[in-house]
Amino acid sequence: MKKINLAEKFSLFSEHWSPKILGELNGQHVKVAKVKGEFTWHHHEKEDELFLVVDGELTIQFRDGSVNLHAGEMVIVPRGVEHRPVAHEETQILMFEPASTLNTGNVRNDRTVEALEHI
Amino acid sequence: MKKINLAEKFSLFSEHWSPKILGELNGQHVKVAKVKGEFTWHHHEKEDELFLVVDGELTIQFRDGSVNLHAGEMVIVPRGVEHRPVAHEETQILMFEPASTLNTGNVRNDRTVEALEHI
Repeated sequence: MKKINLAEKFSLFSEHWSPKILGELNGQHVKVAKVKGEFTWHHHEKEDELFLVVDGELTIQFRDGSVNLHAGEMVIVPRGVEHRPVAHEETQILMFEPASTLNTGNVRNDRTVEALEHI
Repeated sequence: MKKINLAEKFSLFSEHWSPKILGELNGQHVKVAKVKGEFTWHHHEKEDELFLVVDGELTIQFRDGSVNLHAGEMVIVPRGVEHRPVAHEETQILMFEPASTLNTGNVRNDRTVEALEHI
């Protein structure tokens, strides 16, 4: 059984908005990402999505408001709810979501990552 | 959309080995627990289980070895694998597992919590 050290995993990559898969359980992926700037407005048709901030500050904008997350804070975005993650400084996040989840949800653009790397 | 602050959630309870539900997504529960001492050897027939240490130190014993986790470290225990969590000092953990998961898995004893509290 292999332990996963988050700090070590974050040290392995530097690109933004490109989630990496740390593991899989019950059809769900555990992912980490470094994010900075404004992501794409999107929703996921069939996937609820959990965002946990490990370091930094993440705002998740919704059409009717926003949630501001610091380290140790999380939010669950239900399927179908349009959202846009925004980070003013580089921020490290952990995500839990179904293995089927596309990072840009219902949208395909230059931010879409079709095949995520396992680290 | 409501954010979840882990430190605040941990401040709401003090008992050990009694997981609390923070949220649900895709049929999975996000739980937190405070643990101290030795838990029951058990396995889960159909559920993979993720343990992430938030504060403290958790050892997960397996029949053929163990994994020692500090804050920011996690392990995924696959279904069917017998394990026993042990913490020498009070430790705060986050768990991610199917909503169907019983804390003592295939065992029922005084550590079993049948109906978990949502906090």
